[in-house]
Amino acid sequence: MSPGVRAEQARRTRAGIQDAALALFAGRGYDATSLQDIADELGLTKAAVYYHFPSKLELLQSICEPVYARVSAIIDDAAAQTSRQRRIDAVADGFADLTVSRRATISVLAADPVMHGRMKAASKMDDLLIRAARVIYGDSPTPDQILAVRAIAVLSDTISALPELADEEAREVLSRAVKRLLPRR
Amino acid sequence: MSPGVRAEQARRTRAGIQDAALALFAGRGYDATSLQDIADELGLTKAAVYYHFPSKLELLQSICEPVYARVSAIIDDAAAQTSRQRRIDAVADGFADLTVSRRATISVLAADPVMHGRMKAASKMDDLLIRAARVIYGDSPTPDQILAVRAIAVLSDTISALPELADEEAREVLSRAVKRLLPRR
Repeated sequence: MSPGVRAEQARRTRAGIQDAALALFAGRGYDATSLQDIADELGLTKAAVYYHFPSKLELLQSICEPVYARVSAIIDDAAAQTSRQRRIDAVADGFADLTVSRRATISVLAADPVMHGRMKAASKMDDLLIRAARVIYGDSPTPDQILAVRAIAVLSDTISALPELADEEAREVLSRAVKRLLPRR
Repeated sequence: MSPGVRAEQARRTRAGIQDAALALFAGRGYDATSLQDIADELGLTKAAVYYHFPSKLELLQSICEPVYARVSAIIDDAAAQTSRQRRIDAVADGFADLTVSRRATISVLAADPVMHGRMKAASKMDDLLIRAARVIYGDSPTPDQILAVRAIAVLSDTISALPELADEEAREVLSRAVKRLLPRR
């Protein structure tokens, strides 16, 4: 095998482990799922799973990494806007897109609060939110502004309260909620 | 002992167990605290703790019960108001009061996401929020209205992001956030 083929195969194995893990977490809960269960599901040895993810928590974090990358990109996009109103709109729309695209994962998390708790404990979201508040409101955001930006992250959980909503409508409802929440001044 | 004195003593023992439990949960985490640890802390037998709380989860729920009672009272108060704007204000102010008065508990929960997760799993909050949406907006709330009311409950977590804020200012910041969030129409 060429190095390129091998790297592509490793990437695919990692993605397969992540998908199987999320499905098992959803089905029987995070605490009740072992790395052995995930290996069994895929017909891999436990050693093969360990090679990619030394612990269940690191596996969970790896599932979250793409979310942090997208939040970071949303903040960069907002920073490039020329007015506060446009920065607020960019954050609201970016957040709504992200939340709706991760809807299945969020529903899994909402159904398993223990996993949700473990994920939050390992989260880099706090640092990202502090950066978002500075980008939108400048270097000294007020308490109202800080609280509102923090609230964006928890707003994504509420989407599981509206399972019957089509993605496009869910996106608009979320975006409107963030735009109301974030103070203009 | 008269029955009245005995009932008062039982009430005090329960409250003592709840206080000790919350302090231990805060110090070493929910999962790492056993009913035996709580008994040791108070100089009680484990049987005495079991008598009041058959499981750690029931103990945790009993700590939350007063919150549900207060949320219920806030909704009753809102229902007695004569306009939607007044109902929104009643919910916003009641929620802000409740959150600030439970600030220490919320900080404990925010610092131990696993406990927070377990508590959410056992929560009656969903039913209360559905009732709140109907009280404020009538029998057929829109998706925007449902999502905003759901978001109130998660907003309380954000107060731990502002530890330096005095209670009075924290109350006003929270109340303003809820008033912005809840749609007038």
